[in-house]
Amino acid sequence: MRYGFGVDLGGTMVKIAYFDENGTMLGKWEIPIIVDDEGRKLLSNIAASIRQFLAQKSIAPDSIVGVGVGVPGPVNAAGVVNKCVNLGWGRFNIAEELSKLLGFPVKAGNDANVAALGECWKGGGRGSENMIFAALGTGVGGGIVIGGRLLYGAHGSAAEIGHLVINRDEPEPCNCGKHGCMEQYCSSTGIVRMAQRILNQSNAYSKLRQHNPLTCRDIFACGRSGDELAERVLNQYYAYLGEALANLCDMVDPEAVVLGGGISKAGQMLLDGVRPHFDRHVFHAASGARFALASLGNDAGVYGAFKLVLDAFG
Amino acid sequence: MRYGFGVDLGGTMVKIAYFDENGTMLGKWEIPIIVDDEGRKLLSNIAASIRQFLAQKSIAPDSIVGVGVGVPGPVNAAGVVNKCVNLGWGRFNIAEELSKLLGFPVKAGNDANVAALGECWKGGGRGSENMIFAALGTGVGGGIVIGGRLLYGAHGSAAEIGHLVINRDEPEPCNCGKHGCMEQYCSSTGIVRMAQRILNQSNAYSKLRQHNPLTCRDIFACGRSGDELAERVLNQYYAYLGEALANLCDMVDPEAVVLGGGISKAGQMLLDGVRPHFDRHVFHAASGARFALASLGNDAGVYGAFKLVLDAFG
Repeated sequence: MRYGFGVDLGGTMVKIAYFDENGTMLGKWEIPIIVDDEGRKLLSNIAASIRQFLAQKSIAPDSIVGVGVGVPGPVNAAGVVNKCVNLGWGRFNIAEELSKLLGFPVKAGNDANVAALGECWKGGGRGSENMIFAALGTGVGGGIVIGGRLLYGAHGSAAEIGHLVINRDEPEPCNCGKHGCMEQYCSSTGIVRMAQRILNQSNAYSKLRQHNPLTCRDIFACGRSGDELAERVLNQYYAYLGEALANLCDMVDPEAVVLGGGISKAGQMLLDGVRPHFDRHVFHAASGARFALASLGNDAGVYGAFKLVLDAFG
Repeated sequence: MRYGFGVDLGGTMVKIAYFDENGTMLGKWEIPIIVDDEGRKLLSNIAASIRQFLAQKSIAPDSIVGVGVGVPGPVNAAGVVNKCVNLGWGRFNIAEELSKLLGFPVKAGNDANVAALGECWKGGGRGSENMIFAALGTGVGGGIVIGGRLLYGAHGSAAEIGHLVINRDEPEPCNCGKHGCMEQYCSSTGIVRMAQRILNQSNAYSKLRQHNPLTCRDIFACGRSGDELAERVLNQYYAYLGEALANLCDMVDPEAVVLGGGISKAGQMLLDGVRPHFDRHVFHAASGARFALASLGNDAGVYGAFKLVLDAFG
């Protein structure tokens, strides 16, 4: 049996997990993120932490396949990071740097892409080889798995699902500077923005008006209890998401579409809401994709990161 | 040196070409299409034609890598065709059937997908590993190449570019039954339809009114000569196409976008028209894709078909 590590670089913490080659998680811990120049300090902290774990557990280094890393920014298949704004990183090869520090093979990928691989391997997409993952959170991220492998793209920027243009007439700009990106509607901030627009355009009674600040969770709760304006907001949400997923499926023709991120906590209600809009817009040949909820939560990244290195060097 | 064949099943003819492993075309001929049950007669005709060629040229069968085939319908990576309406085919494994008849390995793909692979290998996308191909003809087909390999999808239906929904409010149905598909605007029939709408809504003078029937070529010609309504039609065309290609690039992050089909005969005018709309809608990380015109014309399919079998068995 061989073993390895999955590393997920998050906003404030680095999550590190230890797996056997079957994907059974045997250990998991966190170390703090350090924002530094080119990641030198952070990478050496990660390497030190992994070495310490191996020493404590008396694990033979030659049983280790390698270390997979999910990075919050574009990373190409060769391991070259091209700016991680949150970490203060410029352009460098994270796979090479970390591999030098550790003496193990390292494979890196974008964090949302890597989470998609994790969900495909051990989560909501289990059993599929071709999968689209949409992480519906504060923003909208995602990943595309093809033939069991992650789609990187030429510049490490594939599967920027949140920045598909779905409304060319949107007057407000997206965080990315464009107008009408899916993230402007299908994220938790997006759905609240849509709700506030609808509330401002109407004088009708709605329980939504009792919430200040209004949250995504409130909108789903009010919708579930039959509030008419909340239902209207949710219908708009489902329509946008269903159409965007249909377009994605027309391109990728996957077996599964997996929805994750905070909004996926709405559960079956979300799947049931989106599916009719998806069915309306999808090309018949790609209409067979099954919909599922993500099931690994915040661990999707470490599962996917380990799978990445297992596929590359296992 | 090894050799092989690329076969392209068209509307009325089957094109067959003979290549060396470097992709130099050494021979090319056509045989008529026969619409028959499960393709039995057509496949045996293709096999007989290839055998005859080998015998005439005294080519040793063990120098043959195999035969690649482009099929006008969905084909999965295993070679299973799932209905070719034009050929009267149901569901069967064309790769297995043709391989049995020939004694060579056979690899099959969808015709537009296979043409994409040809353009990536020897045409407008040469030098790129990740490429999006849009065939802008009577309809809109396409293909996606990732890491030099064709994207098939789980059901052999990947890259249905023409059926991306780009206008959810379109009242008229697409041939596929959906509403607002890219093909309804970006094909040669689509641009004529847009032109007729714009002409019907206006009383302004336009040279477009002198053409009956109005063709795609007329619209580009009138636009080139400064006709105001033709320019308006073309701007709408470029806007739709640019936005759709931007969304595709946000998913695939390719090095190149290649435009083919009859409309690509408009040449540099088409590329120059589309690019500003693409730049406006593409996510910055994927904005580096270069645009090129297809260069293999109707031979893209045989080049791609041979590349398919070369990659699989070469």
